[in-house]
Amino acid sequence: MQLNPSKTLGQIAGMIDARFAGSPDFVISGINEIHKVEPGDLTFVDHPKYYDKALDSKATTIIINKEIECPEGKALIFSDDPFRDYVYLTKQFRPFEPSAGMISPMAIIGEGTVIQPGTFVGNHVTIGKNCIIHANVSIYDHSVIGDNVILHSGTVIGADAFYFKRRPEFWDKMESCGRAIIEDDVEIGACCTIDKGVSGDTIIGKGTKLDNHIQIGHDTVIGKNCLFASQVGVAGCVIVEDDVILWGQVGVQKDLTIGKGAVVLGQSGIAKSIAGGKTYFGSPVLEAKEKMRELALLKRLPNLFENL
Amino acid sequence: MQLNPSKTLGQIAGMIDARFAGSPDFVISGINEIHKVEPGDLTFVDHPKYYDKALDSKATTIIINKEIECPEGKALIFSDDPFRDYVYLTKQFRPFEPSAGMISPMAIIGEGTVIQPGTFVGNHVTIGKNCIIHANVSIYDHSVIGDNVILHSGTVIGADAFYFKRRPEFWDKMESCGRAIIEDDVEIGACCTIDKGVSGDTIIGKGTKLDNHIQIGHDTVIGKNCLFASQVGVAGCVIVEDDVILWGQVGVQKDLTIGKGAVVLGQSGIAKSIAGGKTYFGSPVLEAKEKMRELALLKRLPNLFENL
Amino acid sequence: MQLNPSKTLGQIAGMIDARFAGSPDFVISGINEIHKVEPGDLTFVDHPKYYDKALDSKATTIIINKEIECPEGKALIFSDDPFRDYVYLTKQFRPFEPSAGMISPMAIIGEGTVIQPGTFVGNHVTIGKNCIIHANVSIYDHSVIGDNVILHSGTVIGADAFYFKRRPEFWDKMESCGRAIIEDDVEIGACCTIDKGVSGDTIIGKGTKLDNHIQIGHDTVIGKNCLFASQVGVAGCVIVEDDVILWGQVGVQKDLTIGKGAVVLGQSGIAKSIAGGKTYFGSPVLEAKEKMRELALLKRLPNLFENL
Repeated sequence: MQLNPSKTLGQIAGMIDARFAGSPDFVISGINEIHKVEPGDLTFVDHPKYYDKALDSKATTIIINKEIECPEGKALIFSDDPFRDYVYLTKQFRPFEPSAGMISPMAIIGEGTVIQPGTFVGNHVTIGKNCIIHANVSIYDHSVIGDNVILHSGTVIGADAFYFKRRPEFWDKMESCGRAIIEDDVEIGACCTIDKGVSGDTIIGKGTKLDNHIQIGHDTVIGKNCLFASQVGVAGCVIVEDDVILWGQVGVQKDLTIGKGAVVLGQSGIAKSIAGGKTYFGSPVLEAKEKMRELALLKRLPNLFENL
Repeated sequence: MQLNPSKTLGQIAGMIDARFAGSPDFVISGINEIHKVEPGDLTFVDHPKYYDKALDSKATTIIINKEIECPEGKALIFSDDPFRDYVYLTKQFRPFEPSAGMISPMAIIGEGTVIQPGTFVGNHVTIGKNCIIHANVSIYDHSVIGDNVILHSGTVIGADAFYFKRRPEFWDKMESCGRAIIEDDVEIGACCTIDKGVSGDTIIGKGTKLDNHIQIGHDTVIGKNCLFASQVGVAGCVIVEDDVILWGQVGVQKDLTIGKGAVVLGQSGIAKSIAGGKTYFGSPVLEAKEKMRELALLKRLPNLFENL
Repeated sequence: MQLNPSKTLGQIAGMIDARFAGSPDFVISGINEIHKVEPGDLTFVDHPKYYDKALDSKATTIIINKEIECPEGKALIFSDDPFRDYVYLTKQFRPFEPSAGMISPMAIIGEGTVIQPGTFVGNHVTIGKNCIIHANVSIYDHSVIGDNVILHSGTVIGADAFYFKRRPEFWDKMESCGRAIIEDDVEIGACCTIDKGVSGDTIIGKGTKLDNHIQIGHDTVIGKNCLFASQVGVAGCVIVEDDVILWGQVGVQKDLTIGKGAVVLGQSGIAKSIAGGKTYFGSPVLEAKEKMRELALLKRLPNLFENL
């Protein structure tokens, strides 16, 4: 999330009543979770395992729970609980704003776009031209929909990321301040869910077509002209390159990449990155021809055991 | 889709500005995709692989991208892009009509039927007697619901077929003009999706009961008194005969038949037609007893490898 | 379901015009299906296989289709079709009441709770304090929502149990009179379904977090601080103890228990009870380390067959 206008280190540290290292005038132009940081961003880190990753990232201000020296050109904010303070700041800059009616007066809707009855369009939503948004769709605040997009009934765009921190006694919710972006010429079937990014954007690329009951997790970026069949589930922080085809009920774990033009057969499970240009099958997935050979051998097992 | 009233070859060819072979008065009484054609129908073919199938089908008028001689008793329309012209004609005869309110004044709703708040009933929908349509259901235009039907919240009846033609630069959408038909005494759980047929009907047979989150693809015909557990997905153009039981999360690929009384255990994947009267398990599916034997042998593998 | 006020054996038997054994003043304080019975309850049994279970249960009044002697301290109602009569009674005491608007005037909604547009809140629903109920959620009659609960769009709370009795010619619907209970601090993602209990309660325990597209069947009890990823399906009458983690697309069959702290990897299928404190994988599920060993051996099969 960009801060508009920018804040200073002094202002931000003051909001959470924290000590800091760096000039009070040091500029903070965005708030972002570690997966999607840019220069000017504030991020947080609360586990020694990730200190170096955060300090070496592009983020220039880091909320951290250790007294260390401030790296050159960066700023630090010291906190006994960086997660708590980061979530607090997110809530201040992106508070939940209840809606007065089905279509927010703060939404911008392009020419030629039809919105069917029962559809909710949240605050600060942008919808392009010549879209058809069918009945009973829900579009959360700050979502961005391109031109010529079709959204079928029951679909939910921009719900919160499923992202919780384990505390001894409970799961602590990360507040999402990112967006869901649906590019031009996308069609999304009925009862799909495209979660917003934690702090960046979840993106469905131009010309991609999704069937019904599809789940796309937070911060996942789907390329152009992909085709996903019904009941596919893609976790968070996944990169799906262009022209990928996922058949029905395929499951994709988080933090991986599916290469351009890959085809994955129905009910497969993808737990690691896979290269483009090939066909895959199985849970966990193998190249389809390898999996087929395995299945053929399995049929010979009874004979094998009999002969031994 | 039936054309009511019928058109003539000359009229239809005129709409797409195309040359034709046959009498200009030749009657065209319906527009149908090749899977569901009858005498009097117009269909299209654009790939040499399917020329014979289209020309030998029951359809009597064919839009085709090759200069051939007109078969006896039929008519041809010549086009450099039959898919484009077929889709254009579909849109002319079945244009999308935005709705003015949650329940279209063009819908017919039977006596004793209760429609809960937030439910959308599209244009030209017919709902029978003594149904309960729960809150926030979406019923697209032209859907047909029988008597004593129960539809639970979030369910979507008659959304578009997931059917696209691959073009070099994009996926080209086939416009659906078929219907979704829910016969008498059917109960459909929450958050289900029953897509309309591409040009024919998707049918849920009398007395069939569907649990939640179930996907039924376009032109699929489900028999009578079937029972599908939650999260089952059935692709398009499938025939499920009567009394079939599919347990949770079963996936069914397109263009196949499941025989009468078949039982398929949870998470199975069906890629080919299966005979009725038997129990199946696995992905891909085997007869359950065969699969169980395979699973038992797998448990003996460690021992086998140790002894070799 | 509790009867408030209680009825007498004579009154209940009179409603279905049935003979009975026991004092006409014998008290019936609840109507419950055999899975959840307590002293004072009326239940039913119609299959010889379950006679003893019903007669030995805590239920004190049993509708039964056999002339037997009345057990000490209990009452019997004789019926040629106990299922039909039980369903009839359920419908009398818990009739379906159509709603007049999106939020029933008979619902109780706590202070600080925000209900977004398009959300349906049924009759006799209770919602606690400081909840956020997003747009287009559906909450059926008699559901109970605690404090600080977040429900995302498209989610359906309290739809009917998927429970049918096989008759020679059709599936006969069991009427549900139970409730769905969502405890404090629960978050439920978009397009989830939590069915009501048949006669008891389906419960999502305090602090549990559910991702999108999740199905929870009737009478299932989920413990505290569980975490379920997207597209998980849990059938009816399951007990999930505290701190259980189910990753994406896991399927759980009915009538089993998942022990405290169990972790189940994506796409696994659970057909029998599993112990807590361990990690599982596969369909059907094994301990993950055992499954991993099996997968490793499968990769050695080609070599094995070649060498034999």
